[in-house]
Amino acid sequence: MDRLLVDKLSGDPIKIKLKESQTIGLKNKIVISGPCAIENYDTMRAIAKELKNIGINILRGGAFKPRTSPYDFQGLENEGLSILKSIKDEFDMIVSTEIMDTRDVEHALDYIDIIQIGSRNMYNYSLLKEVGKTKAPVILKRGISATIKEWLYAAEYIMVNGNENIILCERGIRTFETSTRNTLDLNAVAYIKNKYRLPIIVDPSHGTGLRELVAPMSLAAIAAGADGLIIESHIKPDISISDSAQTIDILTLKDIIDKINIIGEAYGFSN
Amino acid sequence: MDRLLVDKLSGDPIKIKLKESQTIGLKNKIVISGPCAIENYDTMRAIAKELKNIGINILRGGAFKPRTSPYDFQGLENEGLSILKSIKDEFDMIVSTEIMDTRDVEHALDYIDIIQIGSRNMYNYSLLKEVGKTKAPVILKRGISATIKEWLYAAEYIMVNGNENIILCERGIRTFETSTRNTLDLNAVAYIKNKYRLPIIVDPSHGTGLRELVAPMSLAAIAAGADGLIIESHIKPDISISDSAQTIDILTLKDIIDKINIIGEAYGFSN
Amino acid sequence: MDRLLVDKLSGDPIKIKLKESQTIGLKNKIVISGPCAIENYDTMRAIAKELKNIGINILRGGAFKPRTSPYDFQGLENEGLSILKSIKDEFDMIVSTEIMDTRDVEHALDYIDIIQIGSRNMYNYSLLKEVGKTKAPVILKRGISATIKEWLYAAEYIMVNGNENIILCERGIRTFETSTRNTLDLNAVAYIKNKYRLPIIVDPSHGTGLRELVAPMSLAAIAAGADGLIIESHIKPDISISDSAQTIDILTLKDIIDKINIIGEAYGFSN
Amino acid sequence: MDRLLVDKLSGDPIKIKLKESQTIGLKNKIVISGPCAIENYDTMRAIAKELKNIGINILRGGAFKPRTSPYDFQGLENEGLSILKSIKDEFDMIVSTEIMDTRDVEHALDYIDIIQIGSRNMYNYSLLKEVGKTKAPVILKRGISATIKEWLYAAEYIMVNGNENIILCERGIRTFETSTRNTLDLNAVAYIKNKYRLPIIVDPSHGTGLRELVAPMSLAAIAAGADGLIIESHIKPDISISDSAQTIDILTLKDIIDKINIIGEAYGFSN
Repeated sequence: MDRLLVDKLSGDPIKIKLKESQTIGLKNKIVISGPCAIENYDTMRAIAKELKNIGINILRGGAFKPRTSPYDFQGLENEGLSILKSIKDEFDMIVSTEIMDTRDVEHALDYIDIIQIGSRNMYNYSLLKEVGKTKAPVILKRGISATIKEWLYAAEYIMVNGNENIILCERGIRTFETSTRNTLDLNAVAYIKNKYRLPIIVDPSHGTGLRELVAPMSLAAIAAGADGLIIESHIKPDISISDSAQTIDILTLKDIIDKINIIGEAYGFSN
Repeated sequence: MDRLLVDKLSGDPIKIKLKESQTIGLKNKIVISGPCAIENYDTMRAIAKELKNIGINILRGGAFKPRTSPYDFQGLENEGLSILKSIKDEFDMIVSTEIMDTRDVEHALDYIDIIQIGSRNMYNYSLLKEVGKTKAPVILKRGISATIKEWLYAAEYIMVNGNENIILCERGIRTFETSTRNTLDLNAVAYIKNKYRLPIIVDPSHGTGLRELVAPMSLAAIAAGADGLIIESHIKPDISISDSAQTIDILTLKDIIDKINIIGEAYGFSN
Repeated sequence: MDRLLVDKLSGDPIKIKLKESQTIGLKNKIVISGPCAIENYDTMRAIAKELKNIGINILRGGAFKPRTSPYDFQGLENEGLSILKSIKDEFDMIVSTEIMDTRDVEHALDYIDIIQIGSRNMYNYSLLKEVGKTKAPVILKRGISATIKEWLYAAEYIMVNGNENIILCERGIRTFETSTRNTLDLNAVAYIKNKYRLPIIVDPSHGTGLRELVAPMSLAAIAAGADGLIIESHIKPDISISDSAQTIDILTLKDIIDKINIIGEAYGFSN
Repeated sequence: MDRLLVDKLSGDPIKIKLKESQTIGLKNKIVISGPCAIENYDTMRAIAKELKNIGINILRGGAFKPRTSPYDFQGLENEGLSILKSIKDEFDMIVSTEIMDTRDVEHALDYIDIIQIGSRNMYNYSLLKEVGKTKAPVILKRGISATIKEWLYAAEYIMVNGNENIILCERGIRTFETSTRNTLDLNAVAYIKNKYRLPIIVDPSHGTGLRELVAPMSLAAIAAGADGLIIESHIKPDISISDSAQTIDILTLKDIIDKINIIGEAYGFSN
């Protein structure tokens, strides 16, 4: 592997400013949360309000949903973007959503702060080049069976096009194991923190697929060196439209954040 | 898995007309060949001429190349499309190339006959919907770690949007094995032929990554029930720009076709 | 990888004499068949008789069964060995069974002709050394996630201890795919035939886990270059104690052999 | 999966007494350390002395080495057992080594306290049954591609034969990723702690294959809920006979233990 822009030998670790007061990288850790899909305005607003109450400033929610079956709910699309914008303004939150089509990138940035590239589109080089032309923070999820090397090269596609505001996101890889939805690869977190410049967060929701594993694997992620977490939460997890089995309620999320802070104090970083 | 349009229970096996005289499906098998990337007009024309000489009517060649590294050759892009069109007209061949961006689909069909969806874009549902709106034959390669079920759902995305001219292509999956580039999953061929309506071809070049395995695995693919092959060939394999180690010369390709015809006679199908 | 005894550079391809008239290797191919487990004397004898009728001389049947659960049927053990011996004598067949414990190797050879090392014991180096001290033909199944390299080294353990009568057996590897029980890796067959000295057979029963895929994958295996097949069969597949879903009846087996012979004639080898 | 003896529904979590003062399970965590292989008496004694100095009471070291190649060092075998016994007596330590052959189990227990079943022998049911007949603590490593279910069934083989002193050990699984030696599956730790009775430790040395990842992954393992760690260490890692790249020095090990104790205090458990 040639020396890449993402390599520590090419520059300092990258610290990304999400808002005046909110950065990720170095000792600053973040927690992003919200439902899998934006279901409707009222539910989304209620979730955002509760998240804000427990100190979470970054809201996620899917407007465009990449579903395995064409017969499953495909998201509210542009209406979803409008809902995010409205909530962002009301609660002064940072909002993030997945973009799947090159034709949506520019338009979406009128509504949202952070672009997510989902696992299924990590190898979509046309899309990577397109977000590389913006300056928006990008969460780049690892492809479900992408090697660490391929994933870093995907980040390089964005960076070489001019955008270095990249947050890697480990979300579990596909293995032979079926007791859990995916195998969360925390080795990858420790490996990347050791040699590369980009901040990396972990998604324990998709990484495990099981609600009861979200808390321990969140703590493990932070202990392995992750710069943050992205966790699916809902005011009523059992009735969420998708990913119900891996979605936690707001109270459980609060407990996780409290425990992370204990580890944080022990290690000397702040959340 | 619900009953899908691609299921045999939903209709007859699909036979696709590529040209007046050339169909795929049922007992008609096809061989598609050509270089990994379109390097320049002269080389491409020379390859096409030799392929035509040994009876191959369907030419492949990459104009847009999805490369792991942004620093590798990304293809001749639109110039590549023009080269294909020119050769198609001169030699009366059917031409096929990979399209990676929703914005290129309509435009490309002025130049080519068959659209390939590459392994990296099998989950690119925006792209699948876009090719679903055309009537062009589509080669849908299996994602490098896509389950058979996910792959069939990807085909369903195309079909439900109105295009049933789908040729599945098994091209090897990612496993722990490193002696070969990928693991060619011929089980998938037999499985799909048993239960589903779509023709399926096999790519032994990417499926093995090793020139010396292309012949035996081509024969194995046909014996397993495949409707055809897509094989990387070049007049000078050793100097081809990409995938050199898995590219064969035209003479070797001729031998493969001869042996397939022997199996074909034994089984009662025609090539 | 250093040059090993199993490498073609170290000597001629190995041809193994199973009996005066039966060899494997070079152009001689074999078919081994029988039930997963030896259930009782009468059933085993009935199966053997039918196999003999369709020209199969090599009988398999498990006496010691490595089952995932300790609560599942563990085999008839020594009684199973006696049944095999009795049938071997009555029908003049070659018999093969799996041995799992170093303490059973010597004893078992009073009853059987061919020792099988099962997939779960491919890395059991104590057992490999022990069979290496005998001269008995050994079927060495590939570990469920063993690399080709590790598998060849396992064979080397047997060979360096003095026994070169090794028949490799590809029986499917563990991947992410769940539609089939395992992924039959025919690349491995072509790869090994290209560079190594040992004969290799294929087990399409475990390799697919599905009865309806056994015929096409048997043909594919032979087309890829395999020296033979080992296929689970039963007079009444649906009531066989284990592996029922992948066990075929004797008539289906007869059809497979007929088709293999057609391929064989085309290629110039004899069965 | 039927209800097993290892299931929490079948009884209380199991706490294992390794010595009067040393238990594992519930809130008691352990650290086992030492070199991959016992190289000679002097080196082993020097390592043991330094480990004892930093408070480690449980020594590991391989006497019988399961090596991929028959040409690699196979261990000191019985001489290795004698070395362990001598050090055990001098330093009042608990000693652990891997046993690979059913014929060695009884004999080895005259020398050692804890039997390890290595990854390659997890499916060796003859061996599992044999250690099941003893009362010795057994470290049961997960097979390199064993599902959690298969691993628990392997433990069940030991338990149903009468020995419940089983310590599971997650040591990384085989995936497509090659930047790290294996993929450490901490999901499995959280999953098993959630539903099963057995203590579970983690081997970050084999789990990563890289010295620089041992510390972060040790902390992650404890944060995920592991009951302990088994870590390869050496007084001179660079000259250790095997696994040098993943072996740490004693000072690094001391740091890891200090950090674990910080997490431990935060969570209320003792080391």
